[in-house]
Amino acid sequence: MTELFAVLAYGEISAFYRLAEEAKLSPTLRGKVAVAEMAAAEMAHFRTLQQAMAERGVDVFDAMAPFVRALDDYHASTDPSTWLESMVKFYVGDGIAADFYTEIAGALTPEVTAVVRDVLAETSHSEFVVEEVRRAVRDNRSERDRLTLWGRRLLGEAITQAQYVMAQRDELTELVLTATGDLNGIAALFERMQASHAQRMAVLGI
Amino acid sequence: MTELFAVLAYGEISAFYRLAEEAKLSPTLRGKVAVAEMAAAEMAHFRTLQQAMAERGVDVFDAMAPFVRALDDYHASTDPSTWLESMVKFYVGDGIAADFYTEIAGALTPEVTAVVRDVLAETSHSEFVVEEVRRAVRDNRSERDRLTLWGRRLLGEAITQAQYVMAQRDELTELVLTATGDLNGIAALFERMQASHAQRMAVLGI
Repeated sequence: MTELFAVLAYGEISAFYRLAEEAKLSPTLRGKVAVAEMAAAEMAHFRTLQQAMAERGVDVFDAMAPFVRALDDYHASTDPSTWLESMVKFYVGDGIAADFYTEIAGALTPEVTAVVRDVLAETSHSEFVVEEVRRAVRDNRSERDRLTLWGRRLLGEAITQAQYVMAQRDELTELVLTATGDLNGIAALFERMQASHAQRMAVLGI
Repeated sequence: MTELFAVLAYGEISAFYRLAEEAKLSPTLRGKVAVAEMAAAEMAHFRTLQQAMAERGVDVFDAMAPFVRALDDYHASTDPSTWLESMVKFYVGDGIAADFYTEIAGALTPEVTAVVRDVLAETSHSEFVVEEVRRAVRDNRSERDRLTLWGRRLLGEAITQAQYVMAQRDELTELVLTATGDLNGIAALFERMQASHAQRMAVLGI
């Protein structure tokens, strides 16, 4: 589970810096503060993972190194140009990550599952996102269409990077195969993730 | 004490975003993570202040508004161009803020003092800064000279903005006058702050 913790850990760090960067797009101080609080929550998750890895004798920095590129590429290829795109990305990105780890949870030991669940626990901050996005698209059809395409692109890029990581990291691939059974199982997994992505988009009104 | 809490609260928010921004200058992932943790600590302090203000019936966002410009100006006028400048700024800026509030603590009620002390409690993260800076300047005289000038500028800009804020906000000015006695007392306060700034610079080896 070193690789799983490591990819989660670098995910928290890169989410932290992305949130801080994208918060500049916020039109209000309230929005900026809400985003800063989401970012701070990512760091609390990072510490949980760092601790769990240290207890297993693993240095989090060494372990994270192989995942830096895929996650940085994901963020670079989904760089929001508006505050709303940025909000949708927070929400959808968190959801995709949570889905993925829920899917593989069956292949994990109880101790590892406990850490992962703790780290992916949904925060109250996503409520803030839902309200902002729903309000913005309610009476604005072109904004809604634009964000719908944006959400689709987020999922596509996430799957691309996930496949890239799995092609490179045997331990993670084994985990997914254990959880899903075989290659058909992996295809089914991606289909379930797409369905649950569509539900999340519906919650946002897009 | 609304104004005192408000200026501290916006100080935390602006420090959060500055830290996140300046962390990009870090040459290592370890450095970036250390800075992200400092930033997350600022948000914990912000929540303490938000809570303390809410208990007094004050909305933190309304209260912070008058201080946005002075703090943003301070940061804009002391924009680090290297990782070392950025590290010195974290350390020196925290120290200046802590000194200032220690100076006025005598004029505060015990409840307010408790909140301020909690918020300004030194974090273990500054040790990271001290080590990085001392190592960098030990065998590099030109770097040391450059950072010495930089430290002086940080103090100068902080005092400029503090005077600007005090010229505008009666409640804060009253606090400082109560704590120091009179205008001569204020001059003595700035002198003590300069002395303690010099001590901090010595700790950094500059």
